[in-house]
Amino acid sequence: MSYRVGIVGGAGYAGIELVRRVIEHPDFELAVITSSSDKGVSVAELYPALVGICDLEFSDHDDPALFELDLCFLAVPHTASLAITPKLLAAGVTVIDLSADFRLKDPKTYEKWYHTEHTAVRELAEAAFGLPELFPDELARVAEYVAQGGAGLVACAGCFPTATGLASALAVRQGYAEGPIYVQAISGVTGAGRKASGRTHFCAASENVEAYGVGVHRHTPEIEQILDAPGRVVFIPHLAPLRRGLLSTVTLQIPCDKQKDFSLEQVHEQYVEGFSGSPFVQVLPLSTFPRTDSVSGTNMAQIGLGYQEQTSTLICVCAIDNLGKGAADQAVQCANIVLGLPQDRGLTSVGTPV
Amino acid sequence: MSYRVGIVGGAGYAGIELVRRVIEHPDFELAVITSSSDKGVSVAELYPALVGICDLEFSDHDDPALFELDLCFLAVPHTASLAITPKLLAAGVTVIDLSADFRLKDPKTYEKWYHTEHTAVRELAEAAFGLPELFPDELARVAEYVAQGGAGLVACAGCFPTATGLASALAVRQGYAEGPIYVQAISGVTGAGRKASGRTHFCAASENVEAYGVGVHRHTPEIEQILDAPGRVVFIPHLAPLRRGLLSTVTLQIPCDKQKDFSLEQVHEQYVEGFSGSPFVQVLPLSTFPRTDSVSGTNMAQIGLGYQEQTSTLICVCAIDNLGKGAADQAVQCANIVLGLPQDRGLTSVGTPV
Amino acid sequence: MSYRVGIVGGAGYAGIELVRRVIEHPDFELAVITSSSDKGVSVAELYPALVGICDLEFSDHDDPALFELDLCFLAVPHTASLAITPKLLAAGVTVIDLSADFRLKDPKTYEKWYHTEHTAVRELAEAAFGLPELFPDELARVAEYVAQGGAGLVACAGCFPTATGLASALAVRQGYAEGPIYVQAISGVTGAGRKASGRTHFCAASENVEAYGVGVHRHTPEIEQILDAPGRVVFIPHLAPLRRGLLSTVTLQIPCDKQKDFSLEQVHEQYVEGFSGSPFVQVLPLSTFPRTDSVSGTNMAQIGLGYQEQTSTLICVCAIDNLGKGAADQAVQCANIVLGLPQDRGLTSVGTPV
Amino acid sequence: MSYRVGIVGGAGYAGIELVRRVIEHPDFELAVITSSSDKGVSVAELYPALVGICDLEFSDHDDPALFELDLCFLAVPHTASLAITPKLLAAGVTVIDLSADFRLKDPKTYEKWYHTEHTAVRELAEAAFGLPELFPDELARVAEYVAQGGAGLVACAGCFPTATGLASALAVRQGYAEGPIYVQAISGVTGAGRKASGRTHFCAASENVEAYGVGVHRHTPEIEQILDAPGRVVFIPHLAPLRRGLLSTVTLQIPCDKQKDFSLEQVHEQYVEGFSGSPFVQVLPLSTFPRTDSVSGTNMAQIGLGYQEQTSTLICVCAIDNLGKGAADQAVQCANIVLGLPQDRGLTSVGTPV
Repeated sequence: MSYRVGIVGGAGYAGIELVRRVIEHPDFELAVITSSSDKGVSVAELYPALVGICDLEFSDHDDPALFELDLCFLAVPHTASLAITPKLLAAGVTVIDLSADFRLKDPKTYEKWYHTEHTAVRELAEAAFGLPELFPDELARVAEYVAQGGAGLVACAGCFPTATGLASALAVRQGYAEGPIYVQAISGVTGAGRKASGRTHFCAASENVEAYGVGVHRHTPEIEQILDAPGRVVFIPHLAPLRRGLLSTVTLQIPCDKQKDFSLEQVHEQYVEGFSGSPFVQVLPLSTFPRTDSVSGTNMAQIGLGYQEQTSTLICVCAIDNLGKGAADQAVQCANIVLGLPQDRGLTSVGTPV
Repeated sequence: MSYRVGIVGGAGYAGIELVRRVIEHPDFELAVITSSSDKGVSVAELYPALVGICDLEFSDHDDPALFELDLCFLAVPHTASLAITPKLLAAGVTVIDLSADFRLKDPKTYEKWYHTEHTAVRELAEAAFGLPELFPDELARVAEYVAQGGAGLVACAGCFPTATGLASALAVRQGYAEGPIYVQAISGVTGAGRKASGRTHFCAASENVEAYGVGVHRHTPEIEQILDAPGRVVFIPHLAPLRRGLLSTVTLQIPCDKQKDFSLEQVHEQYVEGFSGSPFVQVLPLSTFPRTDSVSGTNMAQIGLGYQEQTSTLICVCAIDNLGKGAADQAVQCANIVLGLPQDRGLTSVGTPV
Repeated sequence: MSYRVGIVGGAGYAGIELVRRVIEHPDFELAVITSSSDKGVSVAELYPALVGICDLEFSDHDDPALFELDLCFLAVPHTASLAITPKLLAAGVTVIDLSADFRLKDPKTYEKWYHTEHTAVRELAEAAFGLPELFPDELARVAEYVAQGGAGLVACAGCFPTATGLASALAVRQGYAEGPIYVQAISGVTGAGRKASGRTHFCAASENVEAYGVGVHRHTPEIEQILDAPGRVVFIPHLAPLRRGLLSTVTLQIPCDKQKDFSLEQVHEQYVEGFSGSPFVQVLPLSTFPRTDSVSGTNMAQIGLGYQEQTSTLICVCAIDNLGKGAADQAVQCANIVLGLPQDRGLTSVGTPV
Repeated sequence: MSYRVGIVGGAGYAGIELVRRVIEHPDFELAVITSSSDKGVSVAELYPALVGICDLEFSDHDDPALFELDLCFLAVPHTASLAITPKLLAAGVTVIDLSADFRLKDPKTYEKWYHTEHTAVRELAEAAFGLPELFPDELARVAEYVAQGGAGLVACAGCFPTATGLASALAVRQGYAEGPIYVQAISGVTGAGRKASGRTHFCAASENVEAYGVGVHRHTPEIEQILDAPGRVVFIPHLAPLRRGLLSTVTLQIPCDKQKDFSLEQVHEQYVEGFSGSPFVQVLPLSTFPRTDSVSGTNMAQIGLGYQEQTSTLICVCAIDNLGKGAADQAVQCANIVLGLPQDRGLTSVGTPV
């Protein structure tokens, strides 16, 4: 069966990666793609990699064709999704939202960090959080609803929360974290978006690393929600000179009562076991740590674990492609799940080894 | 039908890109992969992007399993192919050779530029030159031979010759080139191979461009053969700080008798027409020139044409991925053709737009 | 003696490089720096490398302090210099102009390529072309005028013309060039300016090379003027993913009557001799070609020469830093000369070897 | 006065940066430079940036000229310095050692982390730890000894320890750190050394970030020594695709009894005050964090401070150039101090703002 699929906000980096994935998907037909900044422009003109592959033009966000879709991806800034999602759902269109608007379960938390009212609280209550390996039940619930003819809503996890959650959630759930959880992460420049700015200029971004949003980044409450650790996460993102790639390094303090019997091998086994059913998560052998280029262009996550005995610290590292598992690919994975397709449908192309 | 396929020299950049393509190919089964430097090592350990995707180990070049194959790719340095190709052909294995050993039709030219005897002249006489868009007849001949149960040999074009030929051969064949043909090209660092050296160290290669092999590069006679312009090509390659990508810029002096009626639009039409049957060549609209990142990770070639009136110079530019159309992907395309498969089988994954 | 020096257009890449050089200069005092886009902003806020080193703020282009200067650098787009230069000269301020407004001796050529009227023809007639190694007499004339109390005008050569001229002018002057002169050059991204754009975004510029301005780039007539080769230059610039650095590769066809006795060694000697008095030009040994990172951050130019015998082609390659010898450093060198200072004053800091 | 200066291990990245600095130094004369791997090679051939600037050749490590020097920099791997330092000191040559051999005050700690015997315990007892802003007294002691005609020994701090110490030592000394101290740092590829390897190949290092030496890196005990926090440091270095630059991000848990009255402004003032006499440390305004490219090519360190209230965590970030303040420039600063020269002699050239 073929699903009519659309992308709202298709001209940005996550949006155009979705174009690639939707075109490769054997069950999806890309029917409409919108962009507020580039309407009327051909997709292939803006992204010449798609010459001969995509002959659509960007239309406006209010394109009526959106309401005829089976499923719509939203790759828009926060608040834009608040505005459009209720309309799409009302029209019977399942929504896979890549924005932050429906990620935080508590609208108060959203309003505190995003400084704007949450105007779709009813939809929020129904939304599944889209991080399939850690929250399969939420997606299963929406899948059931969609199977019965309903229009479902998935709020895909953000890029840093995805990597951080995959790195550390299994350990945190085992109780291996006392006190503050320190998360330091490094992202490539696609994470800063397509908008040209002084900061993303090649001559500013190359040959430079920097921390940003120190202690105040909006992914903090989302990580706390994933780890069920309210008020305990210190999140410090960094920008590094690569296009794609995100590495999250999490340090967990083993509680006193668990230090004596702590075994890294055992945690490793728990990870291997915990992710054994996930085609997109690879737990590396002990003393191996992931490289972001190993997952570039894919939906893969690679995880490495280490232990520093003198401070009883568990170190969890996860590499993803911020546009892949951190955005477009995970969105397609969520779409597959809620549509009842195999979760890896359309996501099996092999990344370039070099 | 499934073909048993092998890769000799699989640990290098072209070799590992072949692994990716063979794994993605619906009709190929990767049966054996060899490496003289990394035998016994698992493919996924050397290239962690293949964790969970390829579970083979590199074996030695004399692995007897090679002689049980249907088809074997050779991604070895020149002279190594001279040694192994006759044996594989004798064993009934079709050979797709990425080395330079069987590209030059005249063994004397080979011996002059490569300073070594050509020890497989009989095989050379039967080899097809693997640049499908420009020399379809050679591949058709070998395909026919293979269809009759024979073991065929294809010598895939080199990376610079492929881009240069696609950029300029149609114009040269129309007689639009008088005197020397100037070819300046820029390649990414994968073109220099996987061997670590002072020159490929990140701290030498980044933030640097340089010319190399000035006037003496071994791709010169191959370009002359493609353009049927013996002794007329000046080829100057440059190295630039990117992983993958190759841009060839060719300047052709329009002969006096053709200047008066010269029309760039007409040449452009001849290109569009000439490549209309080729799924992998895209002639860009006039006044548009190709970017290498538009073809990264694919078998695509994008071509742009320009004309400088005051000097009657036609300017032909072609962008390819040196590991894609310039190596592994073109080799798979050639394999498809000689096996009677659609030429794009296994090559349809969409490159990342960013 | 200390000169009061100003910079108009100081917030761009050439401008801020001038700040660095003026601060390091033992005889210059940086009195004023202007920017139309960043007035009121502190220099160190925009460029944190200058924290603690420069405590000026950008003022507006009409800052009256400009007219109290001894010497003023103009790092503004073309036409902006046309407007301000006559006023500065009238106020007795010597002008070192980095724009294109006073480079082309014939205002008709300027008007043809820049599509705007030349409104300062009188000043143009007095301007020296600032490429000291090739046109010392023009600078000597202005120096004499300044020594007598006049306000001089220097139009510094552009980045591509500087590298191309240093690469090939000595050979062209010897008559070693017949027919069209092909110039292919590669520039780093600082050459595209500080303005953020889709093209200079890290995610567009990294991992990409492309040709641009093919056959129509405005540096073409300037190169023709330097080489005294009107209507004979084909100039094709390329953009590569590095910050700073420019490589120009020029191919010259040796005329028939000179081919028989041609000796690359002799040309090499002529270059060594010709540049022996120039502290900023290094002619590399034969069969050595320059790397742009060897001259990064300096006023140096490195030159390599090659010969392809079969086509009688002389190949001349020059590497410079487009912001150094191609912009700010050469401007300081010109300023030194017209002020009667040693030409390397303030330019002797050693570039980073890595 | 002019000092005869030598560099042992001059062909590596720190060594060649020392060459640049020694040449620029008004009181130093570079008399000898050695390399075990490149003896007999001219410095300018290996590093063409030094063509025309340095005409020395690398000699062997046992060059007798070393013993005629006034001062010698050692840029060799650990254990090599153990062998040569006692001989140089015995010959009256002051030694500025960039290796790890004399950094750790307790030879037992050295032997534990470096798995080799410390064979120069007597010299170790006399060595000053070379991190002038934090340990001025040690250098003052050696300076006094040198002033009296003795040969002094300085063990320059490592790159990560320097940045980490400058970021956090003032806060730690105020008692603002309870429990483990988490240090995550990112280094450019020059930090991995000049030796070509699979890991430093452009095609492995570009477009990639990774953690390495997780929890076991040998800079851990050095950081603990600087912070006087034995057994409390978790240090996780990362590699990112830039040439030069190092960012250290340290998180400190404010003790309960200090949380109530904690004021980030006050800590900031303490930093401004504490570094007020240091020409090479710049404490940035609150809510500003450092960029590595702002200090590239210099001896500068830039520091930013932040506070996350919900977890009472102080966040200290410091950017340095790993070859500048992290190696060669700090070594020259230490040399200046022990020789009684102004500490910034030869270190005042302004870094490139872009």
